[in-house]
Amino acid sequence: MRIARFEVNGTIRRGVVRDDTITEIEGDIFSEFEEASTTHQLVAVRLLVPIVPSQMYGPGVNFIDHVRPADGVGEVRMAPTPQPWHKGVNALNNPGDAIVIPFDSANGIQYEGECLAVIGAPTRRVSPEEAWHRILGYTCGNDVSERNWQRNDNSYWRGKGSDTFAPVGPWIDTEFDPKLGGDMVVRVNGNEVQRANTAKMLFDFGELISYISQQVTLRPGDIVWSGTTGRPENLEPGDTVEVEIESIGVLSNPVEAEPHQL
Amino acid sequence: MRIARFEVNGTIRRGVVRDDTITEIEGDIFSEFEEASTTHQLVAVRLLVPIVPSQMYGPGVNFIDHVRPADGVGEVRMAPTPQPWHKGVNALNNPGDAIVIPFDSANGIQYEGECLAVIGAPTRRVSPEEAWHRILGYTCGNDVSERNWQRNDNSYWRGKGSDTFAPVGPWIDTEFDPKLGGDMVVRVNGNEVQRANTAKMLFDFGELISYISQQVTLRPGDIVWSGTTGRPENLEPGDTVEVEIESIGVLSNPVEAEPHQL
Repeated sequence: MRIARFEVNGTIRRGVVRDDTITEIEGDIFSEFEEASTTHQLVAVRLLVPIVPSQMYGPGVNFIDHVRPADGVGEVRMAPTPQPWHKGVNALNNPGDAIVIPFDSANGIQYEGECLAVIGAPTRRVSPEEAWHRILGYTCGNDVSERNWQRNDNSYWRGKGSDTFAPVGPWIDTEFDPKLGGDMVVRVNGNEVQRANTAKMLFDFGELISYISQQVTLRPGDIVWSGTTGRPENLEPGDTVEVEIESIGVLSNPVEAEPHQL
Repeated sequence: MRIARFEVNGTIRRGVVRDDTITEIEGDIFSEFEEASTTHQLVAVRLLVPIVPSQMYGPGVNFIDHVRPADGVGEVRMAPTPQPWHKGVNALNNPGDAIVIPFDSANGIQYEGECLAVIGAPTRRVSPEEAWHRILGYTCGNDVSERNWQRNDNSYWRGKGSDTFAPVGPWIDTEFDPKLGGDMVVRVNGNEVQRANTAKMLFDFGELISYISQQVTLRPGDIVWSGTTGRPENLEPGDTVEVEIESIGVLSNPVEAEPHQL
């Protein structure tokens, strides 16, 4: 099942997506809901971030070829545990909305195509096995990053948390299984620039969620990002960047430059 | 004016505190509200965190004697800008509720008495001068820290973001002026263990909020912490820790050990 959040006629609703239609639902997506009688054409609604989390966590480096040094040689050093960090919820960005390059970014911004697990129930000190049962479903995300800030600041508050740096969507897929593996593909202006597979995560979602839950109560709607792979490139104003996980869907966002403020 | 959030008869309300009474208010504390006819004795209600922020930011080191190395000698090195970081909202803790020492903390936890600015209006790319006008008021906070995790992890997600590590309260004082200076005093079991003054912040709240707002839209209710001073000591199970800012009030919390889970 694909659960979306959308705007139609100025109001925000949730619905179930099937092919090119979306049927409104009533109730709580984390406990009980049912489909209502109103169905829209998908093209007639504006999709929003499918969930508004209280917090989002990145995993730290989580794919082996994101660890390798820039020249592709040298020793690969892995952290013995996940290294969670907060991705700012201010950065949340709807499907189709612009990713904005801050005018004071010296070296520009880069994409990172990722798979996101959406927590479905309060989660504290659970085992990796139990953690899988606390996941409502999965969606696509773009962990937009400003490398200069990411490297030189003491935290990722703006390097990965500037406004618009967290496109999420297009919906939550409750049937996707990251253990079976799904390719996470990024395209810039239609050209494939990144491909990784959820089955290759160094710490899988069960391990990530279990680890975070040892010290933090994860709430329904909270989001854990998969991490990314390879060496992303810069995005330019006018680009369109897509993150696709084949069995989930496509998250597409244009890129804009913020006007310089004098 | 002192604006509190509290629970009475199982419902959550807001109110204005005067001496030992609290008068319920109706409306939006960020725009327009008025006092209702219902007044309670302060001792008859349960004070809660006065605001639930979407995000909280620490400033990085913000007092000169928190920079000095442990032996008290050596060069003091200051960052040329604030170094913001996310303090997890999962960690929010009501006045009077227990700060819990995680059973898997090797070296225990420490207090940090701080002054907190509560944002009153959407704030993006404002000057330090303008930033002061976006503050609704101030409250007390305890930036509880687990130093081992703070030092060794790549972020503060648990070192400063474990559940219960963010006691905030007892209310928002809209008249306090941190530029005039207010002592931030910490007492453990009645003994003073820390004293700093808001006038000695290296980056004041205007500068901190302006800096963060360059990349992040701060929302009404978001919280910016002042930073702390000196070299805090460990808290032990059974302790009571108070953070007092004289003209604001006292935030008091007991300390408990989490039972070890086998």
